[in-house]
Amino acid sequence: MSSKAWGGRFQKSAEAWVDEFGASIGFDQQLVTEDLEGSIAHVTMLGKCGILQADEVDAILKGLHTLQEKAENQELEFKVEHEDIHLNLEKMLIDLIGPVGGKLHTGRSRNDQVATDMHLFLKKRVTEVIALIKKLQQAIVEQAEAHIDTIAPGYTHLQRAQPISFAHHLMTYFWMLERDQQRFTESMKRIDVSPLGAGALAGTTFPIDRELSAELMGFSAVYQNSIDAVSDRDFIVEFLSNSSLLMAHLSRFAEEIIIWSTDEFKFIELDDAFSTGSSIMPQKKNPDMAELIRGKAGRTYGNLMGLLTVLKGIPLAYNKDMQEDKEGMFDTLHTVVGSLKIFEGMVRTMVVNEEVLHKAVHNDFSNATELADYLATKGMPFREAHEVTGKLVFTCIQKGIYLLDLPLEEMQKESTLLEADVYDVLAPVAAVKRRHSLGGTGFEQVTKQIQHAKTLL
Amino acid sequence: MSSKAWGGRFQKSAEAWVDEFGASIGFDQQLVTEDLEGSIAHVTMLGKCGILQADEVDAILKGLHTLQEKAENQELEFKVEHEDIHLNLEKMLIDLIGPVGGKLHTGRSRNDQVATDMHLFLKKRVTEVIALIKKLQQAIVEQAEAHIDTIAPGYTHLQRAQPISFAHHLMTYFWMLERDQQRFTESMKRIDVSPLGAGALAGTTFPIDRELSAELMGFSAVYQNSIDAVSDRDFIVEFLSNSSLLMAHLSRFAEEIIIWSTDEFKFIELDDAFSTGSSIMPQKKNPDMAELIRGKAGRTYGNLMGLLTVLKGIPLAYNKDMQEDKEGMFDTLHTVVGSLKIFEGMVRTMVVNEEVLHKAVHNDFSNATELADYLATKGMPFREAHEVTGKLVFTCIQKGIYLLDLPLEEMQKESTLLEADVYDVLAPVAAVKRRHSLGGTGFEQVTKQIQHAKTLL
Amino acid sequence: MSSKAWGGRFQKSAEAWVDEFGASIGFDQQLVTEDLEGSIAHVTMLGKCGILQADEVDAILKGLHTLQEKAENQELEFKVEHEDIHLNLEKMLIDLIGPVGGKLHTGRSRNDQVATDMHLFLKKRVTEVIALIKKLQQAIVEQAEAHIDTIAPGYTHLQRAQPISFAHHLMTYFWMLERDQQRFTESMKRIDVSPLGAGALAGTTFPIDRELSAELMGFSAVYQNSIDAVSDRDFIVEFLSNSSLLMAHLSRFAEEIIIWSTDEFKFIELDDAFSTGSSIMPQKKNPDMAELIRGKAGRTYGNLMGLLTVLKGIPLAYNKDMQEDKEGMFDTLHTVVGSLKIFEGMVRTMVVNEEVLHKAVHNDFSNATELADYLATKGMPFREAHEVTGKLVFTCIQKGIYLLDLPLEEMQKESTLLEADVYDVLAPVAAVKRRHSLGGTGFEQVTKQIQHAKTLL
Amino acid sequence: MSSKAWGGRFQKSAEAWVDEFGASIGFDQQLVTEDLEGSIAHVTMLGKCGILQADEVDAILKGLHTLQEKAENQELEFKVEHEDIHLNLEKMLIDLIGPVGGKLHTGRSRNDQVATDMHLFLKKRVTEVIALIKKLQQAIVEQAEAHIDTIAPGYTHLQRAQPISFAHHLMTYFWMLERDQQRFTESMKRIDVSPLGAGALAGTTFPIDRELSAELMGFSAVYQNSIDAVSDRDFIVEFLSNSSLLMAHLSRFAEEIIIWSTDEFKFIELDDAFSTGSSIMPQKKNPDMAELIRGKAGRTYGNLMGLLTVLKGIPLAYNKDMQEDKEGMFDTLHTVVGSLKIFEGMVRTMVVNEEVLHKAVHNDFSNATELADYLATKGMPFREAHEVTGKLVFTCIQKGIYLLDLPLEEMQKESTLLEADVYDVLAPVAAVKRRHSLGGTGFEQVTKQIQHAKTLL
Repeated sequence: MSSKAWGGRFQKSAEAWVDEFGASIGFDQQLVTEDLEGSIAHVTMLGKCGILQADEVDAILKGLHTLQEKAENQELEFKVEHEDIHLNLEKMLIDLIGPVGGKLHTGRSRNDQVATDMHLFLKKRVTEVIALIKKLQQAIVEQAEAHIDTIAPGYTHLQRAQPISFAHHLMTYFWMLERDQQRFTESMKRIDVSPLGAGALAGTTFPIDRELSAELMGFSAVYQNSIDAVSDRDFIVEFLSNSSLLMAHLSRFAEEIIIWSTDEFKFIELDDAFSTGSSIMPQKKNPDMAELIRGKAGRTYGNLMGLLTVLKGIPLAYNKDMQEDKEGMFDTLHTVVGSLKIFEGMVRTMVVNEEVLHKAVHNDFSNATELADYLATKGMPFREAHEVTGKLVFTCIQKGIYLLDLPLEEMQKESTLLEADVYDVLAPVAAVKRRHSLGGTGFEQVTKQIQHAKTLL
Repeated sequence: MSSKAWGGRFQKSAEAWVDEFGASIGFDQQLVTEDLEGSIAHVTMLGKCGILQADEVDAILKGLHTLQEKAENQELEFKVEHEDIHLNLEKMLIDLIGPVGGKLHTGRSRNDQVATDMHLFLKKRVTEVIALIKKLQQAIVEQAEAHIDTIAPGYTHLQRAQPISFAHHLMTYFWMLERDQQRFTESMKRIDVSPLGAGALAGTTFPIDRELSAELMGFSAVYQNSIDAVSDRDFIVEFLSNSSLLMAHLSRFAEEIIIWSTDEFKFIELDDAFSTGSSIMPQKKNPDMAELIRGKAGRTYGNLMGLLTVLKGIPLAYNKDMQEDKEGMFDTLHTVVGSLKIFEGMVRTMVVNEEVLHKAVHNDFSNATELADYLATKGMPFREAHEVTGKLVFTCIQKGIYLLDLPLEEMQKESTLLEADVYDVLAPVAAVKRRHSLGGTGFEQVTKQIQHAKTLL
Repeated sequence: MSSKAWGGRFQKSAEAWVDEFGASIGFDQQLVTEDLEGSIAHVTMLGKCGILQADEVDAILKGLHTLQEKAENQELEFKVEHEDIHLNLEKMLIDLIGPVGGKLHTGRSRNDQVATDMHLFLKKRVTEVIALIKKLQQAIVEQAEAHIDTIAPGYTHLQRAQPISFAHHLMTYFWMLERDQQRFTESMKRIDVSPLGAGALAGTTFPIDRELSAELMGFSAVYQNSIDAVSDRDFIVEFLSNSSLLMAHLSRFAEEIIIWSTDEFKFIELDDAFSTGSSIMPQKKNPDMAELIRGKAGRTYGNLMGLLTVLKGIPLAYNKDMQEDKEGMFDTLHTVVGSLKIFEGMVRTMVVNEEVLHKAVHNDFSNATELADYLATKGMPFREAHEVTGKLVFTCIQKGIYLLDLPLEEMQKESTLLEADVYDVLAPVAAVKRRHSLGGTGFEQVTKQIQHAKTLL
Repeated sequence: MSSKAWGGRFQKSAEAWVDEFGASIGFDQQLVTEDLEGSIAHVTMLGKCGILQADEVDAILKGLHTLQEKAENQELEFKVEHEDIHLNLEKMLIDLIGPVGGKLHTGRSRNDQVATDMHLFLKKRVTEVIALIKKLQQAIVEQAEAHIDTIAPGYTHLQRAQPISFAHHLMTYFWMLERDQQRFTESMKRIDVSPLGAGALAGTTFPIDRELSAELMGFSAVYQNSIDAVSDRDFIVEFLSNSSLLMAHLSRFAEEIIIWSTDEFKFIELDDAFSTGSSIMPQKKNPDMAELIRGKAGRTYGNLMGLLTVLKGIPLAYNKDMQEDKEGMFDTLHTVVGSLKIFEGMVRTMVVNEEVLHKAVHNDFSNATELADYLATKGMPFREAHEVTGKLVFTCIQKGIYLLDLPLEEMQKESTLLEADVYDVLAPVAAVKRRHSLGGTGFEQVTKQIQHAKTLL
């Protein structure tokens, strides 16, 4: 009666639209390469273990290689009635080589098969993500190297705080990305594990060699518990978590690029290739790509939340809910890869308006800390020095001038510790230079930091 | 140089892959019907207001109708290089009718245009969702009506608590869905509003009639503030919130269906049409659809979280981040519509194992509350009655019997208030019948409840 | 053996630390007022229905009133060993008036009791939230009224787009808040419902009058299904959803206030009372409150996600998981109330730098749309007009001038449709004034909009 | 005028309620120990580097030690007017030892100070979490060792799938927890880093030795970029991600414990110490703790989502939004620690009903795969074997018997490959035993697995 792979005890078929709701072929066809790779390893192992005979193995392998070719040439036509990538390919194999194709499924189940596909898939893709992160880090290092001497306002609360090297600011993102890279790399330990041979949940009675099939697929380890092998989706959650944090970082960088590109800041100009215009306002040059990436953090967070919700409170082992692991993963991968590529180009081509930055840093109070530190160095308790400086800043605001413009006698009204040499420390370049604490913004420190960063790439 | 609609001040084009990252045509083509509807209303209004001339309007309308036909026949071919549905259609229009097509965009911007499309789209779809909720409610009412007299264990903490009418349990979901329906209906007030004519953000200098175009599109109201009109995505968040709560409800119902379908409970049997088998275990009949819907709550929550994240902290008015409002909405809609349809069929066709339920309720302690209430009615403070009953339950557990099996003299050891008539109140059917407080599980109450429910459909 | 209210069948007590993990008294003591209110209504009803005798009711009422007084004077001492607010109060009542206190629990369960408390609680608090939203709307209207004539750059993509009335921009937030208010008001329909009398899940055998107790507590309706009454937490999810959207709005407004407060924008100055300084940088004046509120959107979203996750996939009726509904609700309420109050003060006291805004709008290309519209009005298809304007903008950028500075002959090189009157439409004030489409930024329209808004307060 | 540490340039103070909204002392007082530790290291370093004089250092250290003692004895009284833990302690120090206390803040800022506190705090707590995970793993191993030979139904889709060793099922959670442990351990690399000396954002002009202060606090590394040091909250997000996945695991285990504890399954009995009763239904024994932990996954997910939202799109360096990093972290820590402790006790004390499991596995079709494998081993393609078995299962269902009860002749109607020895492979114990593939449920494999697991503890 039934054309379903599992139809034996069923008396009635689902209607097409119900099938479609349950089918995953619409999205899991992205696993076609990995599913075939896994099958090739599996059948090779079955042969080596004497579970299938040499001619059976040969026939199946030949069929699988034909399917691989067709897949590369996009000649495979997937059908919803065969539910998923596994049954679609099996059907095609049997159509191609006859009933012997049915022997491919000996000693495995769709449960371990789909898990295997996902591990194979993510292993490749996370490697790619790591490489893209490095490329973005490289672009940051290059911009930073070009701007070690470019003094810019450093911000806290988006208020000017202290003058810094613009390179120092840019390099912050290098380190965020370095941690992202670390996390993705560490997660490999849990991706690079083979579930194949776990069967439906309990292992199999066939004398298979799981370590052999793992080796054939290039995996470094095998799951130690068959139930865990088929019900574990941790490695996907971990991918989504790591991606969410990466996108959080990019959203922060994007926000700064958007702010820096405003008419009011004008700290940078984005390349036309990474900007767009308006269909109604002809003057507009919008940092669309940066905005889009900022927004795409949302989708990444959503996918993480989605899978965590799926996993909440479901019993062992496989449940159909777990089919929901895929679309969010594909979508996040697509988002992360695209965002990293765009960002690399955007950072590499952006032009820093050095003049604007120079002017900015000379027309603000970001040197106020210097004054307080000057007083503290002369022995005034820091809290008091802070209070005195605050009063001098307030005096300047009322007069519409900056600290460097304030005559010495005015300064000395607040503290006689202030002497002529105070004007030296108030120069922004001095403020930057003197911050030579480890990891600080002092030019030498920044140079060292960049050298160190380069060794990590 | 540029073929872009906004290219005038640009010296350099983005590469194709950058364009693709920013383009929305891949998903916003789902708005094709609405975009054309909006354009038809807009150009009609432009004509009535004398902004375009009659022949211009006619030419444009003719072109738009042609596009409508092509859209219905799926003959339109969208291109990534034209970014989005709006520019794709405009390009097609101009190709079709010449430069006069360019006048369609007079007095509007893509910002109000896309908002208009979304409002038109959701207005239709939410109407559909409400209808599907009603159909599921109908299926619940039917199953409930057939099982008013079916006594089943009622659970708290998944432990048997008190015997109930199975109809009463089913009807709980009716009321959850009733609230869902209310919320979707209320949200209509905020969906059914026209943003058209808000322009890029500030309104327009053309003497347009926003109320007229709104009327032509069937909207009940117009936005009172043009910036709000283009930057408001509340109505989508609201749709995602309402959908999340609906899916939370369905996930609860799905969980029960899964539990009821176990070998251990066997309270119901799902129709084959809503179950699937295993590719390896021939005996399996899995409640796949229920599991999948339980899992799909995750994706819905994720989409909600995604859009909330997008909106967090973005300034007025339109930002490109807001393009991220669409895919989550389309996906949620697809999920909700599919889940409601499946659920309706699943509930309508499921078979309730009355015998199993009957047996269950006669072999447990779910009548213990009756005993406590009996004692309380005879004047024992409830807390004490509870303690006495607890001890009697414990005695039974040690003897491996149930309360109805306990001889009177054994009972009286704990309290002499217990007399022969206690066995009457301990019968499960009595326990159900006697709960005739408003909204309680008493048969009469349940019958009334169902009558009331039917008036709401 | 056991001092627990449910200890009868238990042979062993949990250790203190286990009890503590399960106890809710640490946070549900915030429901003390509501729990007592509910008990007073319940016992009054029990008396009227003849379930308890007049003297019993009097004794219990007297006890409850004493507890109310003590609660007001903060003299109640809650104990973890009595788990929750309900059992704590019951224990206190019995200590106060003797075993008759135990009769209070006749015909109810903690399941309907806690649901009742939550409904009572939210009913009051949501009323308060609505009032606070109105106060913030009032402050916005006042600032807007003072700045109808203040021309400011309107932004899309944080790039200057078109000149607008600053009042128009502010009023956008009025309408967002108006929708928030609507949603909270609509949710009242589902909050203002009494679950009392639903018992543990099935109703009760006592001849209670649920409508009477509902009326005594001031509820407008009663739950129609007892299982629904004890397992429904929709009204809390709805509160969290509505709050999340409200906080999304405030986070957007906060972002703008932060950006406007930068040295680079300087559009507004916050009152000292809503700013803070730095412990190290004496010149800093940080928009701390705006930042904090922007950040607090996160906590609100998190609480929503938390409760949605709790509800996912749990069976009927009450499960202990549902105890997790409270802390997120209390926290969100605290956040929303605080944020609204702060925002009201911040908006009311902020000073708008009209001069800065005036200068801004005269030194940019936000009047470019005027030029395009001018050409379109003269019959040039809009797309072409856009292209021409884009080229003129580009010419200006190269020359370092603005459109108003461009000589007519230069303009006419691109289109002879441009004549001397073009300079009139290029004046920012004209650009604003002429946008008199409904809801547009034209001064008259904005005035009307504000009048309309005031009728809604 | 101002008593604030940053009040110099301020003319007006915030009202108390505004201060309270911004103050963090209500929750960051949990960092008192770490703040004092950090200060002790900082001042010691300042002395060694000659920035403060020996007597100043001595005075400050003495003061800090006094505060440490007071903190241990809970004698410190924190005040909202001093905002946070840092300023509260500084104020106390100055009150204790006079103005010299003000010198403690030399060369640091609250920005690096609070980051240091958080790193110190999480380093200790994550170590604790890892130890608690190990304890739970230990309890699982012990239960598993006692149940290697206990055959139980293995489930997929909550339908009986194949018989397994109950130990094998339990051990699945061991491996989930093993990965949790790995992730927490790996995150240490990013927690165990000192931000101290990064100042407000740019480093400091004082000749500090960051490596020395790091060493004094026991950190293994220092941040390489001062802006990164103060704006990085990755390590907290990572803690929340790891905790969310851990709680997802516990929620799955909890779900199973709840299901196993039902009247219908009765696979286990929880110890009274980890169950609770009902205030109204005397027979109830509820798996409250398991339910509560299942629910607490929600709060953990919510806290993760909360912080990710906070970080989305905020510019460098410190912003007040980031103060929102703490409460979610404290709450998650509290949740994780409590849940692990409870779970350890619950697993250790639960009683497995071996008889029930034995009976279960002999009255179902979970041996159907054996039949299919038997046929496949005899050369029938697996897909065909599956179909044949499905038909036999259906025959049994119709007859109300199980496969072992089916006469050989009946079987042979479907396939003559079926011979008398088929009854051997159909015995559940054989089904388990024969699954000796690596990681399978075969007794030997499970024994090996447990041995391996023990080496990891």
